[in-house]
Formats: sequence, C-alpha cells, structure tokens
Amino acid sequence: MDADAAMLVIGNEILSGKVEEANVAVLARALRGVGIVLQRVVVVMDDVDTIAAEITELSGAHEFLFTSGGVGPTHDDVTIEAAAKAFGLRIVSSPTMEAMLRAHYGERLTDGHLRMALVPEGAALEASAEITWPTIRVGNTWLLPGIPEVFRAKLPVVLARLSEQLGARGGARAFVSHAVYTRMDEGNLKPLLDRVVAAFADVSVGSYPKWLDPAYKTKLTFDGRDEARVLAARDAFVALLPPGEPQKVD
Amino acid sequence: MDADAAMLVIGNEILSGKVEEANVAVLARALRGVGIVLQRVVVVMDDVDTIAAEITELSGAHEFLFTSGGVGPTHDDVTIEAAAKAFGLRIVSSPTMEAMLRAHYGERLTDGHLRMALVPEGAALEASAEITWPTIRVGNTWLLPGIPEVFRAKLPVVLARLSEQLGARGGARAFVSHAVYTRMDEGNLKPLLDRVVAAFADVSVGSYPKWLDPAYKTKLTFDGRDEARVLAARDAFVALLPPGEPQKVD
Repeated sequence: MDADAAMLVIGNEILSGKVEEANVAVLARALRGVGIVLQRVVVVMDDVDTIAAEITELSGAHEFLFTSGGVGPTHDDVTIEAAAKAFGLRIVSSPTMEAMLRAHYGERLTDGHLRMALVPEGAALEASAEITWPTIRVGNTWLLPGIPEVFRAKLPVVLARLSEQLGARGGARAFVSHAVYTRMDEGNLKPLLDRVVAAFADVSVGSYPKWLDPAYKTKLTFDGRDEARVLAARDAFVALLPPGEPQKVD
Repeated sequence: MDADAAMLVIGNEILSGKVEEANVAVLARALRGVGIVLQRVVVVMDDVDTIAAEITELSGAHEFLFTSGGVGPTHDDVTIEAAAKAFGLRIVSSPTMEAMLRAHYGERLTDGHLRMALVPEGAALEASAEITWPTIRVGNTWLLPGIPEVFRAKLPVVLARLSEQLGARGGARAFVSHAVYTRMDEGNLKPLLDRVVAAFADVSVGSYPKWLDPAYKTKLTFDGRDEARVLAARDAFVALLPPGEPQKVD
C-alpha cells in the first residue's frame, strides 16, 4: 500500500496573505522522492485548539503528518502546545536543547530563548551530524518550522528517517513523471485523454492549460511508480495527436 | 460579527509539487479588503467524493467558500460534479454559457468545449460588463478556476458581489496593518510583545523572523479593523524597544 501523508500549515500570516506559503511544494516533491503521496493540506490560524484538533484528525487519518510554522518562542507560536494537547502529553524542557541554547547564547540567554527548548514529553528529537538543532517528532507527526530556509534545511533529517522506516518494511518506490506539451486546447484534447485514462488506470494523467504562452496551450502530465507504464501511457497519447503535434515531449 | 470564509484548493498538481499554489494569498488579501477573514484553507486531490465532502463541510461551517481549480473540460476537472453532489443538485447545461461557447468556437466547437457549459442546476452565473464569462456560484460557494491569471481576472466580479452583500447588512470594515522591523531576536522580543498583546486584545500581533537579512532580524505586524487601536499598539511596542531600535516603522 502507498504511504500517504498530510501537511498542516500554521500561521495567520498565510491566511491574511501577508506571506506567500512556500513549503507545500517543497515537501510534496521531497515526499514523492521517497514514494510518499501528500494527500491533503490544511492551513489554519495560530490558535491552540484549532491546531490541536487538526493534528488529532490528520495524524489519525494519515500515515505521516508534517506541520509547518509556530515553533518559535513568541506568543503566536503555539504549535508545540497544540501538539502536546493533541497527544495528551505534558510540555517539558528538553535538557539537550536547553544545553544547546545555553552554549549558543551564553550570557545573553533569556527566558524567551529557553522557550525554544520546550517539547511534548517523550517526543523524539531528530538530528544529524550536519543538522544538529533537533526537529521534534511525536509519533508520526513532525513539527517543522515555517521559515522556508529553515524548513528546507531540516528536510534531509526528515527524509533520512522516512527512508529508513519505509526501507524497513520493503521500501516504497519513488514516482516518475513525464509530460507532453501541445497547442491543442482542452476541449479538443478531452476525447484523446479519455482513451488514455481508460487504458492506463495505474497512471495518473493531468491536463494543465497555460495562459497566453506562445510555445504551447496545454501541458499533459503522466505520473506513476512504474516507469515503463508511464512511458507507455505518454506514448499512447502522443500517437493519438494530429500532425504537427506535440510541441515537446519530456 | 466578522464575516469569515474558507477556501478549497483542488488539484493533484499542487499536492505533487508540480505547480506552486498561487491563489491563496491573492484571495486572502482581496477578502481582507472587503472585511472578510479567511479562516481556513484545505487542499485536496481531484476526487469527486473528497471534494464534495469538503464543500459540504466548509460551506456549512463558514459564511463564504471559494474553490480554486477543476473547472475545465477534461477528466481531471471534477469540481462542478462535486459541487452538484455536495448541494444535492443535478448537472445541467447552461443555455447562456452554451451560446457563448458556440459564438466563440463556431465550427470548431467540440463536445469537449460544451462541457464548459455544465453547471449545478439553479447555480447563479456571476458576470459583469467587463468579465462576461460567468463565474459559477452555488449559494455561498464560489467555483473559481485554478489558473492564476484567470483566478485573478475573475476576482473583481466576486468582490463586487460580496461588497453588495456585506453592504446590505451594514458593511464590514476592512483591515489595516502596520509593521515594525527590528534587529532583536524573538527570544528577546517575547517579554515586550507579551505586554502589548495583553494590553491590546483587539489587535492581532504577529512576529516573523527573517533569515539572514542584514536589514532586520524580526518583523512585527499589528493588524485590526480600528486604525487608531492598531497604531496605538504599534507605538506602545516601539516605546518598549531599547535605544537604536526599531530599524523601520510602517
């Protein structure tokens, strides 16, 4: 069975449009690389009860859950508290993280800095030789930071652990993706696509119109875990196209 | 009471990371401009039952729902079908939209093109003198296209209608937002922010660290409907800063 995941994006700044969300696509691509399908994303405000309810729901319904945002030390950072609530855990200060903060800040250390050592009791602290500041994991739920640069910096630790877990049960195959570009519009492509979709149930076929691009009008994508089948679906589609098409095949 | 909204983003291409989502921030900002708070965003795959269940849930729990994606003519465009299912409506061909398609495509018209005239029975077709191709609305639920350029092009029709509705019941006030930039880190800012948050319950205070920016380390935002209160909260915070701060005030 496919491993599946959900993502919970936390932050008033996303829902007010002050900040463009930038972690969903990065996580989605990284997960596909280890054979995990991102099935659902939910974006909520910085509210403890809302986040806790969502963590309970998503961590129960999916094999993995990744949260993004709300792990800093200020009043609007409530993800740790919400995760503790969702899993019925106390919040404790991690001696490991506290020692790292003391070493980093020295005499400048404040109570505010020390809040960054708070974790749900019993949480796993995932780190590596290169990425030493721990990422907090509670069961199947990973608590990642919202700042895009830090989110990206932490992904290698997450992916290494996921690969281990999936490898231990026989592994998951990564997805392959191919594409065809055409100047035909979706209305004309529909009957051709319907034939390919009917013949290749194991290949996911997507159709994406491009707005005002002189090079092509529609991009068709062919995705699956079996590259031979994906290529066969793509080529079956190309064979249905009229003369002069396609514009490009990937 | 504040008017609130949810958004449902539909598309395998978003959840696979092939395409960066680009409509959430645009909608969020537009809604705030007419005094509506975007409370929740959910992203799901191109699956009729999943989308229908989500439309039922979100349209019931929020005053307005906006969907993005899945309104084209191909096999992966299932939002119209899902909305019809969610509201218990049949799918019919709109004579207005069919006539527009016939006029546009003439002899090149295909059955694929005609699928773009399908709507849930009884849906409102919202258009304006400038934006003539209708946007489908079923009750409080607006079905918008996923292509960012087209999503943006349709927003004026949506906003004009929302302003009318909100105006009829006394109007909603738009949000105002101000910001302060500082080189202090969140650990040091926390006690200052806590004092402002406690004194200004009607102002939403956000704290956003910037990664490796020489100009500032943290951006603080102050948001609310009452500009005098927002400015008072911002200025109360600035008054708490040490000499040399802030770097900038907006």
